[in-house]
Amino acid sequence: MLDIRYELTQNKKEKPDESALGFGKYYTDHMFIVDHTEGQGWHDARIVPYQPLALDPAAMVLHYAMESFEGMKAYRLPDGSVQLFRPDRNAERMQNTNHRMCLPSLSTEDFIQAVKALVKTDEDWVPHQEGTSLYIRPFVIATEPHLGVRPSATHQFIIICSPVGAYYSTGINPVKIFVEDEYTRACPGGTGFTKCGGNYAASLISQVKAHDLGYEQTLWLDGVEHKYVEEVGSMNCFFKIDGTVYTAPCVGTVLPGVTRMSCIELLKKWGIPVSEERLPVADVMKASKEGKLEEVFGTGTAAVISPVGELRYEGDVAYINDGKIGEITHKLYDTLTGIQWGKIPDDMGWTVKVD
Amino acid sequence: MLDIRYELTQNKKEKPDESALGFGKYYTDHMFIVDHTEGQGWHDARIVPYQPLALDPAAMVLHYAMESFEGMKAYRLPDGSVQLFRPDRNAERMQNTNHRMCLPSLSTEDFIQAVKALVKTDEDWVPHQEGTSLYIRPFVIATEPHLGVRPSATHQFIIICSPVGAYYSTGINPVKIFVEDEYTRACPGGTGFTKCGGNYAASLISQVKAHDLGYEQTLWLDGVEHKYVEEVGSMNCFFKIDGTVYTAPCVGTVLPGVTRMSCIELLKKWGIPVSEERLPVADVMKASKEGKLEEVFGTGTAAVISPVGELRYEGDVAYINDGKIGEITHKLYDTLTGIQWGKIPDDMGWTVKVD
Repeated sequence: MLDIRYELTQNKKEKPDESALGFGKYYTDHMFIVDHTEGQGWHDARIVPYQPLALDPAAMVLHYAMESFEGMKAYRLPDGSVQLFRPDRNAERMQNTNHRMCLPSLSTEDFIQAVKALVKTDEDWVPHQEGTSLYIRPFVIATEPHLGVRPSATHQFIIICSPVGAYYSTGINPVKIFVEDEYTRACPGGTGFTKCGGNYAASLISQVKAHDLGYEQTLWLDGVEHKYVEEVGSMNCFFKIDGTVYTAPCVGTVLPGVTRMSCIELLKKWGIPVSEERLPVADVMKASKEGKLEEVFGTGTAAVISPVGELRYEGDVAYINDGKIGEITHKLYDTLTGIQWGKIPDDMGWTVKVD
Repeated sequence: MLDIRYELTQNKKEKPDESALGFGKYYTDHMFIVDHTEGQGWHDARIVPYQPLALDPAAMVLHYAMESFEGMKAYRLPDGSVQLFRPDRNAERMQNTNHRMCLPSLSTEDFIQAVKALVKTDEDWVPHQEGTSLYIRPFVIATEPHLGVRPSATHQFIIICSPVGAYYSTGINPVKIFVEDEYTRACPGGTGFTKCGGNYAASLISQVKAHDLGYEQTLWLDGVEHKYVEEVGSMNCFFKIDGTVYTAPCVGTVLPGVTRMSCIELLKKWGIPVSEERLPVADVMKASKEGKLEEVFGTGTAAVISPVGELRYEGDVAYINDGKIGEITHKLYDTLTGIQWGKIPDDMGWTVKVD
């Protein structure tokens, strides 16, 4: 249990227009910080006005990317209250990330306490318009000023929040995906299963390449053979082929997404076959030619579900479901967003009230 | 050509004891900063007192590891002057790193100008004792506050300097190396050839494991087959087997080290056969059993040359040259450090005076 000190702002910011929030452009009035010192553990938990961090230019995070993060949301319910979606899963995933990256972790209980405390403090920032939410960004950085490569002796765990707009403000339009066959996101023994900063920096060049070619996202193949599908952009990826839904196994190179996990649980509940066997991209293209590639979609916290309408792989193009969102894709989207925004009952036990 | 503004400190720090500098513990009086803005390019170059950076908590470097760095040194010569070692190679490597990481680069000319200007400003920080030097750390960070994953619109290129001690204060003692067969440093299509922060964060877990097992460094194998030797710790790695010196080829997964390159050039000049073919770790262990593994050493800016006395691979141990530094290893060390500290003539044209 964290002992949180509150230092509240005297100058609340003006709230932005809820119909033009975008993603990650506005930040709330406060932030949560707790310090970690080797030999002492976590100390000095506080909620303070949102403000710049003063970092020594030799702080290890700026040189050796000793950093991890999570992404989650708070949702405004019809009755005006606010809830979180499976925050325990984010806490546990951050622990797994931090273990791989030699960073310290909060316990699941303290992580959720900190998230709730900050969301409660900035509760008036949780937007009300259809499809909007408060994006929550917990992150850990190594703050020790030291240029030798070794774990840092000091860290900070910080949470900032950003009100974000409806991801699909003009309806859910399937995206065009470029299958990356040159650059690699992850390989066995690496950090693909973590939310460490380095994974994202390494992915930018392919995103730029996809955009230059007229595609919206990259579909990543495995790093060893460039043969099996793994992720799409920074989302997990699902393929419905001849009645079965395939998604890459979480064997070290794939992020164990909370939305991914929730989709698998819903699909199984609905009696739809799910396979977590490795799926060759060639099989996807072949299924498309045979008319068996029924639906493709990405899953992630930001978009929840992102249908894919077109896949390009080595000059070959697969068009999916005539560029329209598929039936299962739509049902997953409606069910997940229904539970998250409190419009349908949460019979999975996934939501947690911020009270 | 950068137009550098100078804002010099009124409070010079006390210089540390030159016999106890360590590595990366002390920082000089000033730092160099230049800003980069999308559409405007580099602007506002300045040398200012060493001070904390004020970063928005949403600055992209803290979340997505959008950062790169270089490592180089300034050396005090017998006549009291100061010189750099192949700074053009660091400038070019940083350009290659930044291209892969979607970060902006300074031209080689501007990079060297900035390094020289800062070293000149803090020239009294270049230590005089045998084996000491001024470590120079140029780095780029993405400063835009934005949580969507895409290249940043604003960056800073910064240089800080740290007086560092003699790496081998008690003589050159060969290190014990653990061959990593679980974790991966790099794979094709990734960022192994760059000095991006993410490579270093990902390597920490193996360093901790090696220390726990009583070894000083990790020897990294290739990420696809875990079969070929690639790097040792954060150094390039050389193996002298039966008269030929082997080092991993720079094919995307190996850092093109400036010391590595200089060693290869010296070996070729001396008529010693050098192979940049991929070398299986099994061949190294076999050569050891046959008495043909003559020398092993790492190369890097910090240590220059680091002899290896023992290699452990899957329960098998290779002892090299009775735990003593080898003849070629020693000659490379003497020649490189001789040129760097101006004790022998630089007939390779590698050094650049800071005037």
